[in-house]
Amino acid sequence: MKREYVSGAVIRRLPRYYRHLTELSGANVERVSSSALGKGLGLTASQIRQDLSCFGEFGQQGYGYKVEKLRREIADILGIDRGHTAVLLGTGNLGRALLNNFNFKKYGFQLSAAFDIVPERAGIEIAGVPVYHVDTLEDYLSQTPASIGVLTVPKGAAVELAQRLVRSGVKGIWNFTSMELGAHCGGAVVENVHFADSLLTLGYMISEEP
Amino acid sequence: MKREYVSGAVIRRLPRYYRHLTELSGANVERVSSSALGKGLGLTASQIRQDLSCFGEFGQQGYGYKVEKLRREIADILGIDRGHTAVLLGTGNLGRALLNNFNFKKYGFQLSAAFDIVPERAGIEIAGVPVYHVDTLEDYLSQTPASIGVLTVPKGAAVELAQRLVRSGVKGIWNFTSMELGAHCGGAVVENVHFADSLLTLGYMISEEP
Repeated sequence: MKREYVSGAVIRRLPRYYRHLTELSGANVERVSSSALGKGLGLTASQIRQDLSCFGEFGQQGYGYKVEKLRREIADILGIDRGHTAVLLGTGNLGRALLNNFNFKKYGFQLSAAFDIVPERAGIEIAGVPVYHVDTLEDYLSQTPASIGVLTVPKGAAVELAQRLVRSGVKGIWNFTSMELGAHCGGAVVENVHFADSLLTLGYMISEEP
Repeated sequence: MKREYVSGAVIRRLPRYYRHLTELSGANVERVSSSALGKGLGLTASQIRQDLSCFGEFGQQGYGYKVEKLRREIADILGIDRGHTAVLLGTGNLGRALLNNFNFKKYGFQLSAAFDIVPERAGIEIAGVPVYHVDTLEDYLSQTPASIGVLTVPKGAAVELAQRLVRSGVKGIWNFTSMELGAHCGGAVVENVHFADSLLTLGYMISEEP
């Protein structure tokens, strides 16, 4: 498959394509035009065509895109079937919300274990995922390597735990804390979920509205 | 203050500037160079200078930026002190995580109430915020208008509730569901927090790493 340089902005839109195409596919829609796809995603038809052209020619003039084919291609580009594994650190409210409600498997990740510093939480299961004491993190990861670590811990614990994860071979940190970790994680990729940034952006946008 | 057209990408970075500058200010740092600021944020010095130039001249050649002054200017740009108000819909795990741990006030939002469809939850308080039955949403908002609605409900309830919020005068939806709401919300701004998109982006990035 043709694969040109892909900008960060395009990569960030691919999951939205994937999600939308999964819905269309689930509704047995067989093909979709770039303008219909754009309407569903709040993008222009020409932006859709441009985005998807980075990854080769999926569309056909006057016919549109084959939904299921495009969905599978994007899944492949996103690496959804590469058998990623994950561990989660911090089983407070947010960690529990993810454990209980977020479908890691649907997005190609197997969440094998959760860790917490509270001794009473070690040994329990949350939504079928075993919780261990964080002191056993390195031992666990040496036996059961993980591709990513999900950080849902208090901000003050974020840097140390991120570094421990990276030293244990984790390649990516899914960071839910408000700590900037980029400078602390060596070669690992850090993907931040900063709720505050999102809310501040929304605040800006509603302030600018007429 | 000079205010040119500001791109979405710059706006998305402003909250990170704000957060980082707040930390520097808290540590009594008085001024910062664009390269030091860039290092803390994983951006280049020239990107920093370019971003901040959209909002007028805050920096001085060879001197850098005055931390507290720049922080206050960005707070002003972001509209942090405009007295935004918010309501939250859905007090499951994620709603509770936000109610208990997210400091709305710190980012200029007053969260006045939460709503849920479960009758037993009506009348309780979570982290000092009263919870009401969702049937009373319109009555409540007619008395106590809100700028934004935080949606932490199941996906299937998202469209209806978003529309009810917008009809009751809410200007922005902070959408934690995986439902695309853009097409359903009239003129309201929708800011999505799609965990899946973030995780898929991370999966892509660690797959692409050598």
